[in-house]
Amino acid sequence: MTPFQWPVRVYYEDTDAGGVVYYAHYLKFLERARTEWLRAMGFEQHLIRQQQGVLFGVRAVTIEYKKPARLDDQLSVGVDVTELRKASISLDQVITNNMGELIVMAHVNIVCLHSDSFTPSPVPETIVEAVKKCI
Amino acid sequence: MTPFQWPVRVYYEDTDAGGVVYYAHYLKFLERARTEWLRAMGFEQHLIRQQQGVLFGVRAVTIEYKKPARLDDQLSVGVDVTELRKASISLDQVITNNMGELIVMAHVNIVCLHSDSFTPSPVPETIVEAVKKCI
Amino acid sequence: MTPFQWPVRVYYEDTDAGGVVYYAHYLKFLERARTEWLRAMGFEQHLIRQQQGVLFGVRAVTIEYKKPARLDDQLSVGVDVTELRKASISLDQVITNNMGELIVMAHVNIVCLHSDSFTPSPVPETIVEAVKKCI
Amino acid sequence: MTPFQWPVRVYYEDTDAGGVVYYAHYLKFLERARTEWLRAMGFEQHLIRQQQGVLFGVRAVTIEYKKPARLDDQLSVGVDVTELRKASISLDQVITNNMGELIVMAHVNIVCLHSDSFTPSPVPETIVEAVKKCI
Repeated sequence: MTPFQWPVRVYYEDTDAGGVVYYAHYLKFLERARTEWLRAMGFEQHLIRQQQGVLFGVRAVTIEYKKPARLDDQLSVGVDVTELRKASISLDQVITNNMGELIVMAHVNIVCLHSDSFTPSPVPETIVEAVKKCI
Repeated sequence: MTPFQWPVRVYYEDTDAGGVVYYAHYLKFLERARTEWLRAMGFEQHLIRQQQGVLFGVRAVTIEYKKPARLDDQLSVGVDVTELRKASISLDQVITNNMGELIVMAHVNIVCLHSDSFTPSPVPETIVEAVKKCI
Repeated sequence: MTPFQWPVRVYYEDTDAGGVVYYAHYLKFLERARTEWLRAMGFEQHLIRQQQGVLFGVRAVTIEYKKPARLDDQLSVGVDVTELRKASISLDQVITNNMGELIVMAHVNIVCLHSDSFTPSPVPETIVEAVKKCI
Repeated sequence: MTPFQWPVRVYYEDTDAGGVVYYAHYLKFLERARTEWLRAMGFEQHLIRQQQGVLFGVRAVTIEYKKPARLDDQLSVGVDVTELRKASISLDQVITNNMGELIVMAHVNIVCLHSDSFTPSPVPETIVEAVKKCI
C-alpha cells in the first residue's frame, strides 16, 4: 500500500544560520504529516481529546539526516504504519524533496495517553479499525 | 528605577538562513524576560494559573528591529512597566547585545485572562502590589 | 483589489500550554503568507538572494491579538500592500479563522537589504513593478 | 568522568496544547547543551566556521521520551561523549528535572562538515584534543 504523503514547504522559520533546515524542525514536519494522516481518516486530534479523553504522545524517535533541505524546498513527508499494538502505533516516516532525493528517514513510536494523567490508554476502537487498513 | 534584565544567548535554533535571529524569535526572548521578571517577584505562572485560574495573554505588540543579532551573541532583555490597569499591564522591552548596541525595541500589552474562558480578569492583588513597586 | 490570501493549519507545534497558538508563532504565519505572495508573483526568495544579492528583512511589526486560534483551526492569512517606497514595503496582514472571525491584525514594514552587509538596498525593479499592481 | 550539564528552564514557547513540552523542542535543549559544552572548552561555533570553514551537523538522533516536562520546570541536560572518530562525534544526552526524574534519553551522532559543500571534514585538531579529555 502506498504510504500517505503530505507536502511541506520550507520557509525561513524552518532554516538556521547554517543555511539549511534546523534538525529539530523535521520533527514538526513529521508530526504535521501524522496529523494530516489521522485527519484524512476522519480523526481530528482536538475532538479525539474532547470526546475520548485521550491524546497521542511520542515515546521514541529514531531519525537519520541524509541530505539537508533548504529555503523554498518543496518536501513530501510519508506516513507508513509498521505496527499497531493495544496502546501504541509504530510508523516509518520518510521525507523526500521534489527531486526525489532522500532528506530524512525516521521511525516513530506514538502512544495513546489519557490526556489528564498521561498514562497509557488503549487506542480508541474507531482509530484501530482505520489504522488496520493502512498496514 | 533600573528595569529588570534577563540574559539570553543566541543558539542555532534562533537563527535563520539569513544568518541572523529570525524575527519571530525575539518575541520568545521578550516572553522569557517577562516570565523571569514575574518569577523574581515570586510568581510562577503555572501556579498563578492553578491557584487563581488566570493567565497572562498578549493583547498587542509593537516591535522595531534595529540591528540583527547573530549566532553566539549574548543579549540582554529588559522589562520596564509603563502602565498598570485593572486587567492589563503595559511594558517597554529593549534588547541589547553585549556591545551595548540596540537590537530590538518593543512595547507589549499583556492582559490577565480567565484560563478557561479567555475573558479578561482583574490582575491578582498580590501581583498588583508587586508590579506597583516596579513603576 | 482583494488581498492575497494564504491558508494555514494550526498544528501542535503552534500551540502552547495555554491551549492556544503561542503569540510569537503568528509572525511565522504572516511570513509564510508574504513568501507565498511573492512566489505567486514569480519571486523565490532564495533566487532573489542568489541573483540580486538582496533579501527582505522585517523592520517593524505592530500586531494585535483579537481572538485566540486553537489546535486544528484552519486560518487564512492576508497580504495587503499599503505603501511601496524605494527600499521598503508596508503591508497590512489580517488573520481570520474559517468562521470568519478576526484572530490577528498586523501591520508589517519590510525593508530590502544587501544580503552581506544588511544595509538598505533599492527593491529590485521587477519586484517594484509587480508590487505596484497590488496597490 | 561526570558528564557536562547545562540548565534549561521550560517557557511557554516550549510547551504545546497537551500541556507539556513539545517533542521536537527537546532537540533544541540537546543542542544548547552541546553548544555550551563546546563553549566551555573554548570553542565558539561561529568562530569555528569563520576560521576553519567547518560546522557540526547532526547525522542521527535516537531519542526516548520517558516523562513529560512542564511549564516552569527546571531541567538539566547532559553531554557525555561515547565515541570520537575522524569526522564525527557520538554523544549520550540525558535530560532530567530538578526532582532527579528522567525526562529524555538521547543518543546523538554529529558530523563535521565543510560549511559550503556540507561534505564531511576531519574534526579540527584542537577540538579533537579537547574532546579526547571528555571520554
